[in-house]
Amino acid sequence: MAMTGVLRPGHIQLRVLDLEESVKFYKDVIGLIETGRDKQGRVYFKTWDERDHNSFIIRQADRAGFDFAGFKVSDVETLYKLEADLVAYGVKTERIAAGEMLETGERVRFELPTGHLLELYAEKTDVGNGQSYENPEAWVPAAEHGIAPIRMDHMLLYGPDIEKAQAILQDVLGFYLVEHVVLEDGKTDLAIWLSTSIKAHDIAFVRHPEPGKLHHVSFLLDSWEKVLRAADIMSMNRVSIDIGPTRHGVTRGTTIYAFDPSGNRFETFCGGYQSYPDWKAIKWTMDDVGRGVFYHDRKLNDTFLTVVT
Amino acid sequence: MAMTGVLRPGHIQLRVLDLEESVKFYKDVIGLIETGRDKQGRVYFKTWDERDHNSFIIRQADRAGFDFAGFKVSDVETLYKLEADLVAYGVKTERIAAGEMLETGERVRFELPTGHLLELYAEKTDVGNGQSYENPEAWVPAAEHGIAPIRMDHMLLYGPDIEKAQAILQDVLGFYLVEHVVLEDGKTDLAIWLSTSIKAHDIAFVRHPEPGKLHHVSFLLDSWEKVLRAADIMSMNRVSIDIGPTRHGVTRGTTIYAFDPSGNRFETFCGGYQSYPDWKAIKWTMDDVGRGVFYHDRKLNDTFLTVVT
Amino acid sequence: MAMTGVLRPGHIQLRVLDLEESVKFYKDVIGLIETGRDKQGRVYFKTWDERDHNSFIIRQADRAGFDFAGFKVSDVETLYKLEADLVAYGVKTERIAAGEMLETGERVRFELPTGHLLELYAEKTDVGNGQSYENPEAWVPAAEHGIAPIRMDHMLLYGPDIEKAQAILQDVLGFYLVEHVVLEDGKTDLAIWLSTSIKAHDIAFVRHPEPGKLHHVSFLLDSWEKVLRAADIMSMNRVSIDIGPTRHGVTRGTTIYAFDPSGNRFETFCGGYQSYPDWKAIKWTMDDVGRGVFYHDRKLNDTFLTVVT
Amino acid sequence: MAMTGVLRPGHIQLRVLDLEESVKFYKDVIGLIETGRDKQGRVYFKTWDERDHNSFIIRQADRAGFDFAGFKVSDVETLYKLEADLVAYGVKTERIAAGEMLETGERVRFELPTGHLLELYAEKTDVGNGQSYENPEAWVPAAEHGIAPIRMDHMLLYGPDIEKAQAILQDVLGFYLVEHVVLEDGKTDLAIWLSTSIKAHDIAFVRHPEPGKLHHVSFLLDSWEKVLRAADIMSMNRVSIDIGPTRHGVTRGTTIYAFDPSGNRFETFCGGYQSYPDWKAIKWTMDDVGRGVFYHDRKLNDTFLTVVT
Repeated sequence: MAMTGVLRPGHIQLRVLDLEESVKFYKDVIGLIETGRDKQGRVYFKTWDERDHNSFIIRQADRAGFDFAGFKVSDVETLYKLEADLVAYGVKTERIAAGEMLETGERVRFELPTGHLLELYAEKTDVGNGQSYENPEAWVPAAEHGIAPIRMDHMLLYGPDIEKAQAILQDVLGFYLVEHVVLEDGKTDLAIWLSTSIKAHDIAFVRHPEPGKLHHVSFLLDSWEKVLRAADIMSMNRVSIDIGPTRHGVTRGTTIYAFDPSGNRFETFCGGYQSYPDWKAIKWTMDDVGRGVFYHDRKLNDTFLTVVT
Repeated sequence: MAMTGVLRPGHIQLRVLDLEESVKFYKDVIGLIETGRDKQGRVYFKTWDERDHNSFIIRQADRAGFDFAGFKVSDVETLYKLEADLVAYGVKTERIAAGEMLETGERVRFELPTGHLLELYAEKTDVGNGQSYENPEAWVPAAEHGIAPIRMDHMLLYGPDIEKAQAILQDVLGFYLVEHVVLEDGKTDLAIWLSTSIKAHDIAFVRHPEPGKLHHVSFLLDSWEKVLRAADIMSMNRVSIDIGPTRHGVTRGTTIYAFDPSGNRFETFCGGYQSYPDWKAIKWTMDDVGRGVFYHDRKLNDTFLTVVT
Repeated sequence: MAMTGVLRPGHIQLRVLDLEESVKFYKDVIGLIETGRDKQGRVYFKTWDERDHNSFIIRQADRAGFDFAGFKVSDVETLYKLEADLVAYGVKTERIAAGEMLETGERVRFELPTGHLLELYAEKTDVGNGQSYENPEAWVPAAEHGIAPIRMDHMLLYGPDIEKAQAILQDVLGFYLVEHVVLEDGKTDLAIWLSTSIKAHDIAFVRHPEPGKLHHVSFLLDSWEKVLRAADIMSMNRVSIDIGPTRHGVTRGTTIYAFDPSGNRFETFCGGYQSYPDWKAIKWTMDDVGRGVFYHDRKLNDTFLTVVT
Repeated sequence: MAMTGVLRPGHIQLRVLDLEESVKFYKDVIGLIETGRDKQGRVYFKTWDERDHNSFIIRQADRAGFDFAGFKVSDVETLYKLEADLVAYGVKTERIAAGEMLETGERVRFELPTGHLLELYAEKTDVGNGQSYENPEAWVPAAEHGIAPIRMDHMLLYGPDIEKAQAILQDVLGFYLVEHVVLEDGKTDLAIWLSTSIKAHDIAFVRHPEPGKLHHVSFLLDSWEKVLRAADIMSMNRVSIDIGPTRHGVTRGTTIYAFDPSGNRFETFCGGYQSYPDWKAIKWTMDDVGRGVFYHDRKLNDTFLTVVT
């Protein structure tokens, strides 16, 4: 009851072009903590304040982009229940053995109609946030190493058939629609933001002809001042900034979009409202979508709809 | 699935000594919006960004304090399901007809072992947050009238038998423990913070001999700078400030405690972490509880354990 | 001694295309307070926290742009002393009688080699900041009407012969150089930022073929969060934003550039360091000037060097 | 002209009880940079953003407290001019040879009627702020080591005859009165805040029977969020906090008072308004002085008038 089923985006795996350059980038610029490497050569990271062993994984490849994302569910029973529900809904699932990812239990993988691999899992080792669970401090020095986000928060994926992905996520996995952009026909969604909690978005999609693409993975900061600090750190490190600091109209969050050394877009953001499933979804129309995406510029920049990995 | 069952604290009713003085206070100092008055003489308020018709209700009485609080559940089926679950658990429930509170559906009321009346309800009229649900702005002028919190967020209640209240909230209603203070015996909780979402607290209790007491009702702000602004506005209006601006160790939120004209304590707070039900609860011991409650002063102030309404 | 001579930019007069539209803009969007109108039809404004009667004046004309700016000096003796110093330096001066501007004493006007009219004056009526000078509050409601800057802070002017303007301001009027951008020849300045106090800039110039042009007049805000609020208010009012929120490399201030309804650029900014006359000036070279001007984008936008009024 | 004569508080020397414990405190908690030690055993510090070699000096002694403070003047001619002016005013002066303090030129020392030794000096080696003066970044990693203030900003001194100290500072050295607290007699000042720039205070005094006492030395931060961060760091290091985070009514600055390991009070503060010498001083009366000092609590705490070193 209350907060059950699918809890949150728990991990995302991206492809990078140069592993060690990327490790250095994610450790020292983004400020993630490297928590392990596996036999496949993948490197695992977590943010300073996350408790589970990993949330962000990279592997070297010839092409940057999105491998898969995993959502943590409340327990193993729920995992199998949701697996059965997916199958009953007509979604093909695959089990991946515990341990295939470091410190992570069994995963149930399926492909969304948008061409993205998603996974559910119930277990990932709690390695703590660098503090005791008894009488902790407010934060630790790692909270100031690099941009140092609080958590890997959500992702925006590009692909076709987003309404079919939405149906699976809503009907089977319990997500709900928070905001959407409707095309000129007044009925087809260009973009949807979905939540499985009271976050304004746990995952989002934009309709796009090519399947399986990543627009960005997003990291949470805890203030607008930290957004400025993130922009400063990006500039000091000559990171390619796409746009920001600015505010989104959608979700009201404050944001920067930028690119990792392989061209994968990431976001460092803060704020925005918290949403509830009994709330009516907010709708944006195409004549105002620029303000919806970038509240201050009030127009999409050149890269928003075109540059994905 | 995901965010279901009990969603959030949806309303709280307090007693005040002078109704019109209190209305003025809650409208112009706290910055709530008056949304109605009923035949019983109760005055209803909401915050600018809440969508449901009311969240904060006052009535005139000879003694200040807490009447009851209501939690919104996801739908009417859930309401009856939880009612049955409560009864099955041995909790006596009472139905209150739709409309007894303005714009509010049927409520299921029960008394916690701490002496507090709680209610569940599934329906309250969506009156919006002063904006269209299509192409909205980031905020509206009402967001700057008085302290102007985002929402009525949680409450801290004082009473006996808090472990019995906790059992009902956890076992029947799906709350989970986020943090607690353990007495010197190492096993009895002095205080517990419970969540029904990913908020670090939707309700909290402190063990206290007298039942049914209110420590504070809490209003959410969206930045530490808004906490400063709240303190300034309190001072400009000569509001009695209990403590703050400061930070809590528990939940890490930044905070001010102050008193309404009747002596009811309220909090205006921001931030703190977000919690998940798979997380281990944080424990505070009595030798460090001062830092847990007031992170900077690192000691309880005189009023914290004694002044309640 | 200490803080003497030329104290600060005290007023600036701009031309606007539609007076009443501009009055509405400066009152309700920028949040200035209208303090008077004179027989010439000029409208006078001050910010909420300024104490002198006016700091920002507009008049209707066929072409937007800069009329003149005035610097307040410490007293009337200093005014005449500086007038004599200007004349001795070879600068032609003109006296304008007290009262020609509302609530303003005698002014000594001269033209800079960049084609801009500057003035010195010693007297402007203290009308207060809306509070008593005895036991004041921290701020007043006017501090939240519109963008509500603290003060008219500085201006950036475009014109030829900026080194000659600099010589007059330094040698005669006591300004000092804080930062500058040097052209590829390694010796000619493209841009100079000058201070007459510990502000990082009281006036600035960019070398430009056309004389007497305005790049922007700048209004001070007191936090980065107020910069976000300013951007929000601009967007709500569909103000044309040139760039920002972002940070300048020069002075480190955080900033938004935007345009008034007549196309005059204004800045709302916060922060940056404070400077002292014993400090070595900071130099920017052309290969890094983009980062100097816009620290996050690290390139000049199209309008920076071309759009002036 | 403009910013001349006495520029700013440039150094302060305090006595501490345990030198190495204090060095560790000022380096790792306050976040100062140690820049040298001299043959007398004194340890020299600067903040990360100060350019001169030192601003804060400690020496070991049996009793904590204030040795002296030095104000930088614009040049050597000014130094001798002010020395002559002091002597002409009846103030006894003493020259201290260049080099007696590390990297510091000749000093002119005199005693205020309050029993405090002040010094003027014109030269201190520019060692930079950790960046080039060509194409710098917005900040450096040292800006996040410990509390990491921007500068040693001002000091509040306790002693008798503050009106005589004020006379010297105003009549000879060019300071001006910004705010003051007037005793019940309506004419005697309890406290005065004086500026030699556009800072709301470069030095302040409270009337006190015992001469030569230190209330606090103050370090500047650049945002209210940094004030919170400072309080957090103090708490993490179990620093004794006197009061705060809060706001002053006087100057409007946000603040924390705390004690170093020897019991010397220091302040970390941000903001407040900027002042000009043509402004009327703000007056506080004894019935409202609590709000003047601590704007939110609206009463003096027990230690404010009694605990000094």
